[in-house]
Amino acid sequence: MTRTIKLAVIPGDGIGPEVIAQANRVLDAALVGSDVTLERTEFALGADRFLATGETLPEAEQQAIAAHDAILFGAVGGVPGDARLKHANIERGLLLKLRFDFEHYANVRPCTLFPGVESTLRDPGAVDFLVVREGTEGPYAGNGGALRPGTPNEVATEVSVNTAMGVERVVRYAFEAAQARPRKKLTWVHKTNVLVFAGAMWQRIVEAVAAEYPEIAVDYMHVDAATIHMVQDPARFDVIVTDNLFGDILTDVAGAIGGGIGLAASGNINPDGTFPSMFEPVHGSAPDIAGQQKADPTAAILSAALLLDHLGLQAEGERVRTAVRADLASRGSDARSTAAVGDAVIAAIPAR
Amino acid sequence: MTRTIKLAVIPGDGIGPEVIAQANRVLDAALVGSDVTLERTEFALGADRFLATGETLPEAEQQAIAAHDAILFGAVGGVPGDARLKHANIERGLLLKLRFDFEHYANVRPCTLFPGVESTLRDPGAVDFLVVREGTEGPYAGNGGALRPGTPNEVATEVSVNTAMGVERVVRYAFEAAQARPRKKLTWVHKTNVLVFAGAMWQRIVEAVAAEYPEIAVDYMHVDAATIHMVQDPARFDVIVTDNLFGDILTDVAGAIGGGIGLAASGNINPDGTFPSMFEPVHGSAPDIAGQQKADPTAAILSAALLLDHLGLQAEGERVRTAVRADLASRGSDARSTAAVGDAVIAAIPAR
Ligand SMILES: CC(C)[C@H](C(=O)O)[C@@H](O)C(=O)O
Ligand SMILES: CC(C)[C@H](C(=O)O)[C@@H](O)C(=O)O
Repeated sequence: MTRTIKLAVIPGDGIGPEVIAQANRVLDAALVGSDVTLERTEFALGADRFLATGETLPEAEQQAIAAHDAILFGAVGGVPGDARLKHANIERGLLLKLRFDFEHYANVRPCTLFPGVESTLRDPGAVDFLVVREGTEGPYAGNGGALRPGTPNEVATEVSVNTAMGVERVVRYAFEAAQARPRKKLTWVHKTNVLVFAGAMWQRIVEAVAAEYPEIAVDYMHVDAATIHMVQDPARFDVIVTDNLFGDILTDVAGAIGGGIGLAASGNINPDGTFPSMFEPVHGSAPDIAGQQKADPTAAILSAALLLDHLGLQAEGERVRTAVRADLASRGSDARSTAAVGDAVIAAIPAR
Repeated sequence: MTRTIKLAVIPGDGIGPEVIAQANRVLDAALVGSDVTLERTEFALGADRFLATGETLPEAEQQAIAAHDAILFGAVGGVPGDARLKHANIERGLLLKLRFDFEHYANVRPCTLFPGVESTLRDPGAVDFLVVREGTEGPYAGNGGALRPGTPNEVATEVSVNTAMGVERVVRYAFEAAQARPRKKLTWVHKTNVLVFAGAMWQRIVEAVAAEYPEIAVDYMHVDAATIHMVQDPARFDVIVTDNLFGDILTDVAGAIGGGIGLAASGNINPDGTFPSMFEPVHGSAPDIAGQQKADPTAAILSAALLLDHLGLQAEGERVRTAVRADLASRGSDARSTAAVGDAVIAAIPAR
């Protein structure tokens, strides 16, 4: 009995294709000897596609992607300042559109400081937390506008739209995640003293859900204070749940202190299974180093491990993480090519 | 010929009164032998006042404060979770109200890693930058609401309101600040790929003003990337200009890497002089350690130095900073009382 997994692959721009190539190799290597077969469809989407055809995410392609079991996503974005991309907005039209349309409401971003990895912090302690970032609303809603644009009297607005449904589902997901971890701690992060309407709703919902999880120790931090704790004592965190924009910022801080953004993995999870979930490194397309085999594929590889977990293949995901851990622990200071990191991780995959 | 400066003092809650007491002592000591006399009026505002009288910022008091030359502000905020404060919102009703009504559009927050101070970063380099945070609009506008509050169908919104006038004036202030510094670099920070309306207006205005300052090297970073750079290579920054919420977050990161929030000073500047500017430590009221002489008054003292600068007394401000630098360089690891730090700084003020 073999199981076939239909994987949509969106390598994207810049270093995306290079890191995804290694993630794919690692996936194949990890699944050798299993009963799982990957059936891949590649979708050429991103800034390069836009420049070539003027298209960002054609409806037919979105539907084709939706028919897969999961999505492996590299990174999208052209060269900063490229005038031809001025009105493109690949981020909103492709990446955020997939997150929103596919209801990726739990954007999960683990932060673990692996042995052998040097943190930018002097004394990081045992860093091992998970950020659950809301992925489908808040300040990312795309609601806003400009009155008298381009004039000295312009007024530009951005509306953060938050729904009780949207907040509750991600908060529940975070409580479940905390419940499954040994420390059973949940920190929710907002800016309730300033963003009083969204803050009050978040607070009401967190408190209501918390009542159903008496084993979980819950605390609250303003987002600004949370960044301080993250660079002063990151080991204090277990699970963090926060809104879309605060999560964007906090997970980049987390990436930086957790050994660098080259190691930061993420999953855009649709926990209800109504659409495929999407796995992507937190880093961007880094056009300045693209095509040079300079990018670290570890974040993409760890994202592929999250993909395996999500598909119920936790043992396979764990084998990938074991291999990454071994590679990181023995990494010298010499720069290696993107493919060489892939080789090393593959070589370190434990036998079955 | 003596000059009299009318100083409004708002010590506030928690550790506010303790740290402001030391800032006031240092101000007096620094001005001994000068031709400047301080005439102080104290205003008892904050959570304690609210609990005692139900008042947050009565109009008559606001007018009285407005009649001063500058404001020295401690910190406000009661004990977290105090039910009696649930509907108070001292932050919006007092601190933000003063910033908004007094047009404190340039919220300046220097970040310098002083010799002898250990950073939380392993290898911070020579950290010396200035964040200019917009202080009167953006996500702090207080525009928002709740539809069907308290129900499962609630929709809560927060509107970031950005005006060309408001952005241009703070951007100009930042360019002037960069112009006055040796490195002449300006980094503007936003999230233009997601907050496209506000982002586009910021971009248009930064580019227009930049054309008037050809000596300034300008670059742009998304806010998430800016936090990474701040914890990986903070020495790269010179002047940063950003919106109200991004500035709130970035300056807490800056405080943390610059030796801790106990050293982070700020000025809420009204550059046009239409209302008094306000100087306050970035830290909060820390009710958990209040009244125990545990708080470090250095942030309040350095804020007082910014106050002197702002009043045209740069030489006096510099004498205070010299004293703080000397104290920090010789600080042991023993905990000192709030007053003992004040004593040490006063003792280190250079003779005229
Ligand atoms: C590329 C951008 C739209 C995206 C975001 O802001 O979510 C990225 O920063 C991320 O964190 O995945
Ligand atoms: C207390 C709070 C309203 C304030 C802010 O968000 O501006 C504080 O965090 C600050 O940075 O001065």
